[in-house]
Amino acid sequence: MTSASLSFLAPNSILVVGASNNPAKRGYNAIARLLADGFSGDIYPVNPKLTELRGLTCYANIRDVPFAADLALICTPAATVPDIIEQCGQAGVKGAVVLASGFSETGAAGEALEQACVSAARRFGLRLVGPNTSGLFNTAKKCNLVGFQDLRSGPVGVLSQSGNMALSMITESLRHPQLGFSSYIGVGNEAEIAFHEYLHYFAEDKDTRVIATYIEGLRQGDAFLQAARQVSAHKPIVLYKSGRTASGQSAARSHTGALAGDITLCRGVMRQAGVILVERSDHLLPVAESLAYQPSASGNRIAILADGGGHATIAADELSDRGMVLAELQKSTQQRLQALLGPQAPVSNPVDFAGASDHYPELFADGCELLLSDPGVDAVLVVGLFGGYQLRFNSTLATTEERTAMSLTALQDHYKKPVVLHSVYKHHRTKALRLLEENNIPVQDSVEVAAHCISALAQYGVVQQRGQQVVPDRHPIERNLSRARDILQQVTNNAERVVTEDRGRELLMQHGIQTGSARLVQSLDELDSAMQRLSNDPLAMKVVSPQIVHKSDAGGVRLNLRGLPALQQAFGDIMTNARNYQKDARLDGVLLSPMARPGVEIILGITRDPQFGPVMMFGLGGIHVEVLRDVSFRALPLNQDDAAEMLAEIRAKAILSGVRGSNAIDHKALIDLMLRLSRLLEYHTEIEELELNPVILYEKGLEILDVRILLGESATQPVPPALAKQATSAYTSTQ
Amino acid sequence: MTSASLSFLAPNSILVVGASNNPAKRGYNAIARLLADGFSGDIYPVNPKLTELRGLTCYANIRDVPFAADLALICTPAATVPDIIEQCGQAGVKGAVVLASGFSETGAAGEALEQACVSAARRFGLRLVGPNTSGLFNTAKKCNLVGFQDLRSGPVGVLSQSGNMALSMITESLRHPQLGFSSYIGVGNEAEIAFHEYLHYFAEDKDTRVIATYIEGLRQGDAFLQAARQVSAHKPIVLYKSGRTASGQSAARSHTGALAGDITLCRGVMRQAGVILVERSDHLLPVAESLAYQPSASGNRIAILADGGGHATIAADELSDRGMVLAELQKSTQQRLQALLGPQAPVSNPVDFAGASDHYPELFADGCELLLSDPGVDAVLVVGLFGGYQLRFNSTLATTEERTAMSLTALQDHYKKPVVLHSVYKHHRTKALRLLEENNIPVQDSVEVAAHCISALAQYGVVQQRGQQVVPDRHPIERNLSRARDILQQVTNNAERVVTEDRGRELLMQHGIQTGSARLVQSLDELDSAMQRLSNDPLAMKVVSPQIVHKSDAGGVRLNLRGLPALQQAFGDIMTNARNYQKDARLDGVLLSPMARPGVEIILGITRDPQFGPVMMFGLGGIHVEVLRDVSFRALPLNQDDAAEMLAEIRAKAILSGVRGSNAIDHKALIDLMLRLSRLLEYHTEIEELELNPVILYEKGLEILDVRILLGESATQPVPPALAKQATSAYTSTQ
Repeated sequence: MTSASLSFLAPNSILVVGASNNPAKRGYNAIARLLADGFSGDIYPVNPKLTELRGLTCYANIRDVPFAADLALICTPAATVPDIIEQCGQAGVKGAVVLASGFSETGAAGEALEQACVSAARRFGLRLVGPNTSGLFNTAKKCNLVGFQDLRSGPVGVLSQSGNMALSMITESLRHPQLGFSSYIGVGNEAEIAFHEYLHYFAEDKDTRVIATYIEGLRQGDAFLQAARQVSAHKPIVLYKSGRTASGQSAARSHTGALAGDITLCRGVMRQAGVILVERSDHLLPVAESLAYQPSASGNRIAILADGGGHATIAADELSDRGMVLAELQKSTQQRLQALLGPQAPVSNPVDFAGASDHYPELFADGCELLLSDPGVDAVLVVGLFGGYQLRFNSTLATTEERTAMSLTALQDHYKKPVVLHSVYKHHRTKALRLLEENNIPVQDSVEVAAHCISALAQYGVVQQRGQQVVPDRHPIERNLSRARDILQQVTNNAERVVTEDRGRELLMQHGIQTGSARLVQSLDELDSAMQRLSNDPLAMKVVSPQIVHKSDAGGVRLNLRGLPALQQAFGDIMTNARNYQKDARLDGVLLSPMARPGVEIILGITRDPQFGPVMMFGLGGIHVEVLRDVSFRALPLNQDDAAEMLAEIRAKAILSGVRGSNAIDHKALIDLMLRLSRLLEYHTEIEELELNPVILYEKGLEILDVRILLGESATQPVPPALAKQATSAYTSTQ
Repeated sequence: MTSASLSFLAPNSILVVGASNNPAKRGYNAIARLLADGFSGDIYPVNPKLTELRGLTCYANIRDVPFAADLALICTPAATVPDIIEQCGQAGVKGAVVLASGFSETGAAGEALEQACVSAARRFGLRLVGPNTSGLFNTAKKCNLVGFQDLRSGPVGVLSQSGNMALSMITESLRHPQLGFSSYIGVGNEAEIAFHEYLHYFAEDKDTRVIATYIEGLRQGDAFLQAARQVSAHKPIVLYKSGRTASGQSAARSHTGALAGDITLCRGVMRQAGVILVERSDHLLPVAESLAYQPSASGNRIAILADGGGHATIAADELSDRGMVLAELQKSTQQRLQALLGPQAPVSNPVDFAGASDHYPELFADGCELLLSDPGVDAVLVVGLFGGYQLRFNSTLATTEERTAMSLTALQDHYKKPVVLHSVYKHHRTKALRLLEENNIPVQDSVEVAAHCISALAQYGVVQQRGQQVVPDRHPIERNLSRARDILQQVTNNAERVVTEDRGRELLMQHGIQTGSARLVQSLDELDSAMQRLSNDPLAMKVVSPQIVHKSDAGGVRLNLRGLPALQQAFGDIMTNARNYQKDARLDGVLLSPMARPGVEIILGITRDPQFGPVMMFGLGGIHVEVLRDVSFRALPLNQDDAAEMLAEIRAKAILSGVRGSNAIDHKALIDLMLRLSRLLEYHTEIEELELNPVILYEKGLEILDVRILLGESATQPVPPALAKQATSAYTSTQ
């Protein structure tokens, strides 16, 4: 979807439906604001009761307007909107912004009204922003349809499901000397234009250098991920996601009616798509600002330059919390620093002036240069009083600080490494601090925020590198695809959705996944030969029936069986239990397999998320998933990096690298399994759920102990390969 | 320790040693500042080269000063300080503030110098602040010895190991219309006065309503906890602890030389002592402000009042993250709200005006009153644009907002429930917002900060209630104390430190702790009778030897043994293995016990923490402790609340209440065990470590599978009951 059709978001002419001469109405304020700001295009007020408004000709009807406007601002109540959109369409209007609420967020009636708007719009290829939106602005066009005061133009584009969040950011921006915005779009109910389309629009908007988004829930999450993958490689996307707790989610529902979904899942797939996540709403703007003005860091090795131990210690804590490491300074760097700062100054990172700078703030530039020139340093975090030495110590230091500020910005440009700066005196706005801000070094008033900014710059460095590097497709060649398709066809032919484990295992086999030596045994007399073929370890026996999914609950599982008599006994028991559990169940027999050696137990699950489509979940077995929720998610299809990141993301990851004397598990085998499963889902789009639980990991190889596959409702009809296509393109888009 | 001897911290006369006429020197600035601020007491500059300084008589020597000063500010280099303290002592000075660095934070030589200062001071009962401190101020006395500008007096007392952190708070406070400080004390190296003494000082200082502390590490943590328990019941203590990561800890060491210690442990014992912890340095001031000005909340049921869904959703998330719950509003409250706000407004908590307030900001007061009057609401969080309606919508709304602001403050007073307010427009400082701040409703510019403030008020409500309520001593009566002492005496008589498991179990028995039916077997021929006496479940056999602590490593453990031959075989093996493992080990035999039924495996460990003294650790067994570090700590002695909180604090707590079909474990039995262990440690102060690992918890009762006890080095000498006394008093202080 190209965003050409969204050009109306930077309109040259605006139709205001529901224009008003009542200053309390949006239909008045919007026009007043456009005139006040000097909007260069034409404004066509529409109101049957008026002939003139603020010196503009006012039209009785849309059809009376002699020119086709780029954008229509619709300020009238919900009930009137479908008809107005119809008229706008006839008048050749390109796009409309619908402010009214009372649509799908309010229930069935509103939902119907919303659909009426959408179909009217679609008939004429007219694009819709909203409904239930606060509006939008475009500073380049001097087009402020949301009525925010004190707008400054700048590189930050805002895409938000909350008008108040945008207002927060704009009001906050006034406390930064030069920070400004390109455009804001309140997406509202996304009835016609979905979130991801705006991403493409911002990607192509030359005035936008960073995209700051506030999201409660996404209606087309999978499309968003695709767009984000493509856009984030070129322009940073910063996201604050609310509705991460039960309370937050119910609050979100009553707000935008959006489905918030599982936050762990959301974070996983967003990270995969190159989105920079902030976990606090008040970090959204500063992190976006940093990404807009500063170079990204090519690594996570940070040097701290401080004029006091307290701030240095806080910074060190915050950086490690965010996965940054304190750079190891070269001996030569440390010697130069010692020579510069004197014997009492700690010069192993963090570097602390320990008073040396009190009357020599120029040391900040000298120290910073020594750090930036060290090849082991990817970025420098300056914390403390800089910019306020003239206030704290001696007013005569002002000029020194101003010279030093210019040196710092020059150093950032020269070394192309970010210099992030915290100053206690940010809000005193001394000239030194203003010079920094005006020359691409934003100043933060909080050590925590500064540490967050520098780690975002490091994160974005990774996103950019990933965006450029071509990952070779390490996907395996499948064994026998048509055979694989037949297996599922058999199931759907019986109008069944449960793929019994014997078939599931065979399906995996066809995709080159080893499922061990389990054998289907259909009758007592097959037991002996089956036992012979299997090793003489103790065996496990599980019932096989499309109607019995939870085998243990049905008494359909027996473990540690040795010898024929035991097997026969177990076979009889299982059949009886199964029969009692569900009278009409079709019993295909039992699956006989050797008991597995102990190892590290994990779960791999694939589901279709209502927001993001097919996703894989990884976690350690048992309580780790169910109680601790220590899991990681990625959208399908996976590549090597995704799989590796999933393993690294769980809190208990140390277990995979071996603890308490045990060795590291076979990462390669596990990642290979994850990639094959991902590929499998691309081919068999009719699979709705696939769970391997547990899989036992060993130092060499792994063993899949249980396979559960469920087909979708629609599986009996042939499934369009839409998913496979979408998935593949999403995959390639990261390469 | 009374803080009477710290009265010099509010001095009426000040001796400045190292007074100077060089404006770059502290010895000049301190005096200039005292004069400029109008310090009412006497100032005695001391400098051999000067006779007069800024109009004050300057003395050549301390002994020449005709009056004994309350406080001496020592601005001279480290080497000179011991002698100067000596002279101050002779001159009858009450206390001294030593600014110079170059003492214990720099190594052995500095350590010696510091000790010289301390012993000089002690000879004269002179108290020492620092050395290596930024100084102190007392606004009531107009005594600013640290040279911070723009100081305002107010209710916040600051106690900090970092001068820059104090500077951060003071500079930040300038952005709050009325926030100010009573005193600041930079504790420096705490050579003579330790952190906890200052807590007592602030507790008695009538100008201080809240104590805000920045700590990297404590030298006398146990004394701090005792002081905090006593003080926090009457005055809130807010703490930001840095040095929580490896990087942060090494940074802290090179700063104050303080030992940062384990953050989980620190948080546990601090919470136990009633300290309000903030995990971000930039939340320290706003949280302290809220606690200083607002009533505490008597519960955690919060109502959110918002003029936009975005802020409401963010607030809901933040509150649940902090353990608050969204109050369930009574039907009647919801009906009244609906009547007030109209049909479109969501009135189940969060309450969202949904535009209703755009031109009627007085609705904030009306809505707030309905919420506060609901008995199910403990506090109200207002988020959004209040105070800026006059800017956002119509300047004529200013007076309405001002009236509404006064109503909100009146409501907080009337209902004695906190009303915490977030406003996007905080920094526009409209009169409405100033009125709020001046009448005990601080305004926050961040939803996250506001949510943190309200949960701190709820936390402090609990601390106050706990402080008042008298907890009956539920401690058990011990069986036979003298017998218990004998057991350990036997060990120390052999000059041993390891208490073998048979003795350990007997010790626990004497304290009323059931340790099951394990039996010591010293020779092969005792095996049979021992086996008879135990049930005929399978048995476990463990070597018993004071030299073999890690029994499994020594091949000293055999499990699932059935029948005499198996037992004899195992006995032989274990003896041989033990012998090979350590030739000269004394082998007392083996411990024979029934194998335990499966249950929930936990670890209880008691160690003596270098900072906080004896602490108990609780966690689930195996990886939960070692890999996930999912543990909780409390200082000894424990009370019921402490023990219950420990169980509730681990991430995996759900396992204790039963998951996946299993039932809840016997909380009562576990808590009883924890309390008895705590009491045991009070009696046997020679115990250095005690670990029960694992303990198996059941639906009814529990079983202790392994007991490991280690005595302290000094255990062979009789141990003074100091710990027991300290511990008991600390215990009673919470009751």
